Amino acid sequence: MARKIDRTLLSYCPDLQVMDCTLRDGGLVNNFEFSDEFVKDLYQANIKSGVDYMEFGYKASKNLFNVEDFGKWKFCDEEDIRAIVGENNSPLKISVMADAGRTDYKTDILPKQDSVVDMYRIATYIHQLPTAIDMIEDIHEKGYETTVNIMAVSKVNDRDIMGALELLSKTSVDCIYVVDSFGSFYPEQICDLTDRYSEVAGKYGKLVGYHGHNNQQLAFANTIEALRYGASILDATVCGMGRGAGNCYLESLLGFLKNPKYNLVPMMRFIEKHMTEMKQNYTWGFDLPYLMTGILNSHPSSAIAFQKAKRTDYTNFYNELHDMD
Amino acid sequence: MARKIDRTLLSYCPDLQVMDCTLRDGGLVNNFEFSDEFVKDLYQANIKSGVDYMEFGYKASKNLFNVEDFGKWKFCDEEDIRAIVGENNSPLKISVMADAGRTDYKTDILPKQDSVVDMYRIATYIHQLPTAIDMIEDIHEKGYETTVNIMAVSKVNDRDIMGALELLSKTSVDCIYVVDSFGSFYPEQICDLTDRYSEVAGKYGKLVGYHGHNNQQLAFANTIEALRYGASILDATVCGMGRGAGNCYLESLLGFLKNPKYNLVPMMRFIEKHMTEMKQNYTWGFDLPYLMTGILNSHPSSAIAFQKAKRTDYTNFYNELHDMD
Repeated sequence: MARKIDRTLLSYCPDLQVMDCTLRDGGLVNNFEFSDEFVKDLYQANIKSGVDYMEFGYKASKNLFNVEDFGKWKFCDEEDIRAIVGENNSPLKISVMADAGRTDYKTDILPKQDSVVDMYRIATYIHQLPTAIDMIEDIHEKGYETTVNIMAVSKVNDRDIMGALELLSKTSVDCIYVVDSFGSFYPEQICDLTDRYSEVAGKYGKLVGYHGHNNQQLAFANTIEALRYGASILDATVCGMGRGAGNCYLESLLGFLKNPKYNLVPMMRFIEKHMTEMKQNYTWGFDLPYLMTGILNSHPSSAIAFQKAKRTDYTNFYNELHDMD
Repeated sequence: MARKIDRTLLSYCPDLQVMDCTLRDGGLVNNFEFSDEFVKDLYQANIKSGVDYMEFGYKASKNLFNVEDFGKWKFCDEEDIRAIVGENNSPLKISVMADAGRTDYKTDILPKQDSVVDMYRIATYIHQLPTAIDMIEDIHEKGYETTVNIMAVSKVNDRDIMGALELLSKTSVDCIYVVDSFGSFYPEQICDLTDRYSEVAGKYGKLVGYHGHNNQQLAFANTIEALRYGASILDATVCGMGRGAGNCYLESLLGFLKNPKYNLVPMMRFIEKHMTEMKQNYTWGFDLPYLMTGILNSHPSSAIAFQKAKRTDYTNFYNELHDMD
């Protein structure tokens, strides 16, 4: 494996930025039903902890989804964000995720001068690239930072990944994400993938990001390996809150980073105040069914259903998974 | 970093062996109070899953510890092991751990011809090396395989580690363990440590083993990284059961290994039958206080006490930890 960028534990990484996506990936756990107090406190904790970006949720199409079926962070209306952050007079940047094919971006995303949002992250499957590219250009032209998050690449062959990277590198996007949608990648593979993303993206002056899932308890390990191999924007969530097995724990990442800009203490205070109750009301995180979907490189939905049904017949589930592919 | 051994995900590793230490490290969670049915089922599950070694517990001194204060696997009497395994007519080898300074090895460890135990693992701090070496030679001479597990090396300087490795490599020991006692090492450090252990041990025809703790959710990641850098014997426990944050999950490791000798399914059946109840009765595994002791390279005892007291004032605990070193 070629090692283009190889940072060590002692390296200073001026490009490094931390993205808190608790409301967005965690919203998939509680249907985006966060209290305003939770969101305000998280916003303050992120500022005090030196986090660089806070993702508030999705910009989902109200034509496709009923507003009354979800909490407001599924839609991230401008006035809802402003009710939390005002004019956001802070160094913390605000991000919103927009799914290719599920966002009315042309109408729903305002020009940047009318918004406190700083960044849109465009989530796309590889077959949706033309839509994603149109979104990138539309949203970039409106004045936002953009990233593109190619999902489920563990199901895509290398040739198509490299083709997608070349295509995306020629757009106006600022950052291309390595995404481990199914929590199936081992550190060795993440090093290799990040290295290849970094090589192509670097040629065109783009950053690389990393977003992991914790199916095999590798989200944190893979995140810091991605950093070593050139990733600049690292995703994490408080207590790993996120769909299924969840994500890289923000507190692990903040504890790992030695730049004094980052501070674990305000995030611990946030956890003390809010996360004990959240964990009582909702379930997420590493468990045997998620390990199985991770190992088998499958979407976690079947494991989520298994957990919801409070089943513990793991062997039957493993057999079912083998029948699904 | 020199890379002496660099295996990939596709490598065939004929030296690879899996050690289940659920009874031993998990015994620290439940005071070694496993039911005979649990132990018999685990023994069968290990055989069917292709696990190479099963550790039954400690060979603790009955002069130092009261027999009535602990379950029997704290002492691993020969007749108790035989009640489970008979003559152990199986490919699964039986291991017992002996702590330097807390084992009456000269009297309590029988000659191999009188025992079904195959291996003794000698756990030692670096300042106990003379005792450990005497144990190695005594137990080796009695006919057993031996390993030496140097604990708490995250608190030992490199020069002393290298000196210890040279000393131990000249003994009769079969395997030298890299041990991450406090769950404080990052993958990059484990690669480097394992590489150095492998270099010295390899010169003298010794194997290297790896035993991790899950304080930072890195036990599995570090275990497979250690494998890449030359470790041959890999420790794991069912559901990661072990002191404090616990260990590498045996099911993660079995799911990762592609040699058809290893089979996840019998272990899943064991988990179905036994581990739901065990998790209801006892608490172990990754949580914020263990993350903190891991980050701060501290013994987990303070975090265990914090959890037992059902405290959630994480910030106070973090301050207390800073005062302890």
